[in-house]
Formats: sequence, C-alpha cells, structure tokens
Amino acid sequence: MGKGRLEAFSDGVLAIIITIMVLELKVPHGADLAAITPLMPNFLSYVLSFIYVGIYWNNHHHLLHAARGVSGSVLWANLNLLFWLSLFPVTTGWMGENHFAPLPSAAYGFVLLMAAIAYYILQKTIIHADGSNSMLRRAVGIDWKGKLSPFLYATAIALSFIAHWLAQALYVLVALLWLVPDRRIERVIHPPEA
Amino acid sequence: MGKGRLEAFSDGVLAIIITIMVLELKVPHGADLAAITPLMPNFLSYVLSFIYVGIYWNNHHHLLHAARGVSGSVLWANLNLLFWLSLFPVTTGWMGENHFAPLPSAAYGFVLLMAAIAYYILQKTIIHADGSNSMLRRAVGIDWKGKLSPFLYATAIALSFIAHWLAQALYVLVALLWLVPDRRIERVIHPPEA
Amino acid sequence: MGKGRLEAFSDGVLAIIITIMVLELKVPHGADLAAITPLMPNFLSYVLSFIYVGIYWNNHHHLLHAARGVSGSVLWANLNLLFWLSLFPVTTGWMGENHFAPLPSAAYGFVLLMAAIAYYILQKTIIHADGSNSMLRRAVGIDWKGKLSPFLYATAIALSFIAHWLAQALYVLVALLWLVPDRRIERVIHPPEA
Amino acid sequence: MGKGRLEAFSDGVLAIIITIMVLELKVPHGADLAAITPLMPNFLSYVLSFIYVGIYWNNHHHLLHAARGVSGSVLWANLNLLFWLSLFPVTTGWMGENHFAPLPSAAYGFVLLMAAIAYYILQKTIIHADGSNSMLRRAVGIDWKGKLSPFLYATAIALSFIAHWLAQALYVLVALLWLVPDRRIERVIHPPEA
Repeated sequence: MGKGRLEAFSDGVLAIIITIMVLELKVPHGADLAAITPLMPNFLSYVLSFIYVGIYWNNHHHLLHAARGVSGSVLWANLNLLFWLSLFPVTTGWMGENHFAPLPSAAYGFVLLMAAIAYYILQKTIIHADGSNSMLRRAVGIDWKGKLSPFLYATAIALSFIAHWLAQALYVLVALLWLVPDRRIERVIHPPEA
Repeated sequence: MGKGRLEAFSDGVLAIIITIMVLELKVPHGADLAAITPLMPNFLSYVLSFIYVGIYWNNHHHLLHAARGVSGSVLWANLNLLFWLSLFPVTTGWMGENHFAPLPSAAYGFVLLMAAIAYYILQKTIIHADGSNSMLRRAVGIDWKGKLSPFLYATAIALSFIAHWLAQALYVLVALLWLVPDRRIERVIHPPEA
Repeated sequence: MGKGRLEAFSDGVLAIIITIMVLELKVPHGADLAAITPLMPNFLSYVLSFIYVGIYWNNHHHLLHAARGVSGSVLWANLNLLFWLSLFPVTTGWMGENHFAPLPSAAYGFVLLMAAIAYYILQKTIIHADGSNSMLRRAVGIDWKGKLSPFLYATAIALSFIAHWLAQALYVLVALLWLVPDRRIERVIHPPEA
Repeated sequence: MGKGRLEAFSDGVLAIIITIMVLELKVPHGADLAAITPLMPNFLSYVLSFIYVGIYWNNHHHLLHAARGVSGSVLWANLNLLFWLSLFPVTTGWMGENHFAPLPSAAYGFVLLMAAIAYYILQKTIIHADGSNSMLRRAVGIDWKGKLSPFLYATAIALSFIAHWLAQALYVLVALLWLVPDRRIERVIHPPEA
C-alpha cells in the first residue's frame, strides 16, 4: 500500500483542523475595542494551537517521508494521532473562552500529552513496519525532544491547578522547542556532503 | 477515467466528515467538572463515529486500490456512500446530546445501515465495471463481514427501542469486527510468497 | 500551467461545500418524532443540493479532463463557478428552514441559474484557451442540456412566487436530466471501437 | 523535500478558508426581503474576501511553481501566510455584521496588510532558499504591486476611522490591481518564443 493516500488524507484532516479552529474565534458582537478585548485569550489560544498543528504537520511530513511502507497498523496509529489532534479546536476554544482557567488549561495539556504519545506510537509503528534496516530509526536517534515533551506536558497539567500561567508558559516553551524542524531526519535522508 | 480524482475527492469528503463531527462537541459553558460531565455521551459518540469513519476510509482505500477503472455508475455509487457518511455528524450529535435516547440511537443505526448498504452497492458496481476477471471479486470472496453487518445494525435499530444500551453495544461490536483491516484484499493484490 | 493543482483545489472546495451543507442540518432539540418532522424540508433540500453538487463535481471532472491547458482566464472562470456553488449551503438552509417559501425558493433557483451560467462561461473559456482544435468543443457539441437548464431555472424562479411546488419539481427535473453523466465527452476522448 | 505536499496542504487550507467564510453568511431568519436586506453588507464582504483568497491562491500557485526547493524556513513562512489568511473569515464576518463600522474595517485592513507582508516574506524566503540563480528572483523583478499594496492597506486602515467608505474603496482597488494574474512569473518560466 502506498504512502500517497495516507499523506493526502492526513494533510486534509490537518488542514481542516487548523482552519476550523478559527470558527471558535466567534465574530465579536460589537464594533468597538470593548467588544474585542475579552477575545484576546481566545486569540492567543488560537495562535498557540495553530503553531502546534503546524509543528505536527511539519514533523508528520518528515516522518512519512522517512517511512518505507504503510501497514494496517500504521494506518490506525495515524488515525489515533489525528483523533487527538482533532480535539485541539475544542480544548483551544474552551481554554480561551474561560481565560485560561485551571481545568480547561489542564484539558488542553492533556490533549497535547495524548497527541505526543500518539505521535510516539506512530513513530514506533513505522519503525517496526520498516524492519531492522529502518531509515527512520537511525534518523530519530535518541529522540530527546519526543521523550522530554510528555514530561513537560504532564508537569504543565499539574501546574494548571496551582499557577495556570506557568502551565501556559510550559506549553509555549514546548512549542518553541519543536519549532525547529526535525533536522535529524533531513540529515539521514540527505546527508551533507562531508 | 482515472481513479486518482475519485480517491482525492472521497478523501477530501471523508477528511471533512471526520473533522466537522468535532464541531458538534460544543465548547462547554463553564470551567469546572460539572460543565463537562454532561458532555461525556457526546464525547463517546464522537469516538465511536470517528472509528467508523476511519474504518470506512480504510476499507474504501482498499476497495479503490483493487478496482481497475471508474465508470459513471461507480462515481454515483461512491457519491451515494459519501451521502450516508455525511449524515454521521448529525446523527452522532443527536445521539450524544440526547444521551443515547431510543429514537436518536435508532437513527444512528439507520445511517450506519444505509452506509453499509451503500458500501455493498459500491463494491458490486466496481466488480461489475471490472468485468469477469475482477481482481476485487476474488479479493472480496464470501464477504461475511459485509453481509453480517447490516443484520447487526437492523437488530440494533430494533433494540434501541427496548434496551438502548444493547444497541450501543452492537454498534461497538460491529466497529470492532471491522477494525481489523480488510486483509483479504491485501492478500490477493500482494500474495504472500509461499 | 498544469491542470493538477486546479483540479485539486476545485475538488477541495467542492468536497467542503458538499460536506458543510450538512452543518445546516442542525441537531434536533428533542429525542422524539415531533423533533424531527419539522426538519424534513431541511433534509429534502440537503438531498437535492447534495445531488446538484455531485453533478457539478462529476461534470467538472469531465470538463477538465477534456481541457488541454489552463490559462489565467480559466482560473478565474473556475473561481467564479466555485463562488456560486459556495452559496449552495446558505440557499439550501434558507429554503429548507422556511419550508420552501417563495423568496427562498427563488433564491435557491437564482444561485442554480448563476452556477449554470458560470459553468457555461468556464466551458467557453476552456474551449477558447484550447484554440481551434479543441477536443472539448467537439465533445460538447450542441450542448442542449447546458442551454436548456438556465431556461428551466428561470421558469422555476418565476414559478416560486406562484406555485412553489412547481419550482421544486423543476429543480428535481433538471437534476434528473443531468444525473446521466456527460457521455458526450467520454465518447470523444475514448471513442468506442467501431 | 518536495513541493508537492506543501502545495497540497496549502491548497487544502485555502480551499477551507474560502469555503468556511460562507458559514459567516448566516441563514436569514425570515423568508421575505426584509430578512435579507440587512445581510447585504455581509454578502459584499464575502464577495470581496472570496476574491482576495482567490488572488492569494492564484499567486501562491505561481510562486511555488517558480520555486526550486522547499526548506524548513519556507514551510514556516508559508504557515505564517496561511495563519493570516485564516483570519479572513473572522474579520470578514465582523466587518459585514457591523456594516463596515470603523474598527472592523480597520481590522479587516490589518489582516490584509499582515497577509501581504507574510506573502512578501514567503517570496523572499523562497528566493533565498533557491540561491543566487533563483528563477523566482528574475520573475518577480521590481515587484511594484507587492511593494505598493502594503501602503494602500495602511492608508485604508487610517481612512477607516475618518471615512470608512474610502477604506472599502481602497480594498476593492487593491483587489482589482491583483486580479490580473502575475504574468511576470509566467513569462520567465515559459518565455514567449521571440
């Protein structure tokens, strides 16, 4: 089975997720500044989630690029990832509308955590499907970002109930960590002529 | 006529269906647990429907992979399937919001039943278009899952009015039946070297 | 410039139009028959519009298949068609919610009429871009369906204000006329071996 | 890394943006003319934004066509552009619902301005990634439209608070300026045989 349709379907779902999040930015009910200042938290949540979905799209792109084939398990591991990503619009809207209140902030982190785990499972599943000579296995290496992020999300979930701004700071921090595209994979596929 | 654009269009529609279902998961109107516990049925319905659309995408993928060409009748049989799948968000939202009440549960099953029949018609139409030497015909074989599912859906529709949890259990059971990807088709296209 | 990206973009827009129409089928606010019977007009409008978008997708598919190249004018003629098709969800919802009242029925017909004209313009633009030896020109022939439909839509718009069920009947009739895929084009591209 | 998936993802997002804008055209709550006349500003805003997204899709098409490769920076410059375009549905709806009031008109212009700047950054990033022999650099030339538009948007933002119809007029004017597809790029890629 080819990778093409899996990529196309994932791109479609990611494109829709990143775009329908904007539907949670409701059109303000007035035409003055007073009508839009309460929407700033919604807007900031939207920006953060847009960056996260962008990161996932970017890394997903690299991941499938390095994959050899696609098995039935890869299809389902991929749908699992898409499932958790599909919850971004709801948790983003909930966190924004409640101005980063504890429970919505924790829920936002929980979905981030589950998406990170789902991504990790997808990576493992592809490596397993590719067999012992997996290009992806070498590319991923020790994968410290993939291993660190879940701990930071879990910390942020706990912090949501104590000092929710620290949780937000952690979400931003992890996004910044990942904003650098996954050069490891690029390096293995296209090694620099040395 | 090529299969490419039919696959692309179907992938687009399936990607949108699977994603806009999440729009029926309305953002909760409070920031505490009391605000989200009533939404659990909505969430569970969403999970079930997500899995069903995933199954359809997966099997549709296999089906078209095994098809030779695409005739006008295949196009319309495919649109018929997409029509019934497009009703998933509405019945999912209705069943979830009414906490699995009898009529919404039956409606959910009815749409599942019609989608199963539409899938069966699409399969037959492709086999017919491919002619006597259809690869898909051999791949599908006796197709016990395709023949059993409609009966289970019909049973679940009837059970909705008697003991709706039995209907839910049946919907989950059929999903589990199908979660295993359709290895029959894979086997015929890429037979194991024996 | 290749046709590929134009087809992909159009498929994307058509897939989204056909799917977001279902968002106008609001989740009913009760769990009994009384809650869904008033929604029958919405459902019937949805079915009709789903078929119309399906017809447009189908014919658009054939149209671009027969086109040689894509000029800047073809891009804009195509966007013009997509614009009118993008209004289907609104007029469909409006006609359904108002149980086929005169003005919404006429508006529905007006958007159908404009889409038909836009399709005609797109066809002419492609033929013009292809030059004197256009495969599409021969394929289209006298195009009686393309020339008849606008008159039927215009008649239906007028009838909306007199006997709106006659307008609905005409909309259904034109859909049936087109449901047969455009075999003319198929015949020119793949002529039967005679 | 290939351009294909970047194009596919961008097409997906643009197709969704252009289509969900129509969701801000709420179905009118009555069936007479009085119910739709107040929606005219919404409709006009929708038309304007549809044309703008069409222009961006068209030019984006040309831009990537002329690009050689896609680096990590190009991916993020592209996501930046998509981010600002994704805000079109909200500002369009806000401006329409408030009948072109000063602040919403200025916000509409601000998003246009940011999208123009993002497009300019994307263009620069692609040229930089392509190196000294960039086909795109030659194609873009002095780029007077790209340099003029931000100034016109900035002027329109200021005018929103003084005479908002002048701001609207400027938005329409810039759209007309761009409606002519970017023939410069076409000329460099496919030079006329002279």
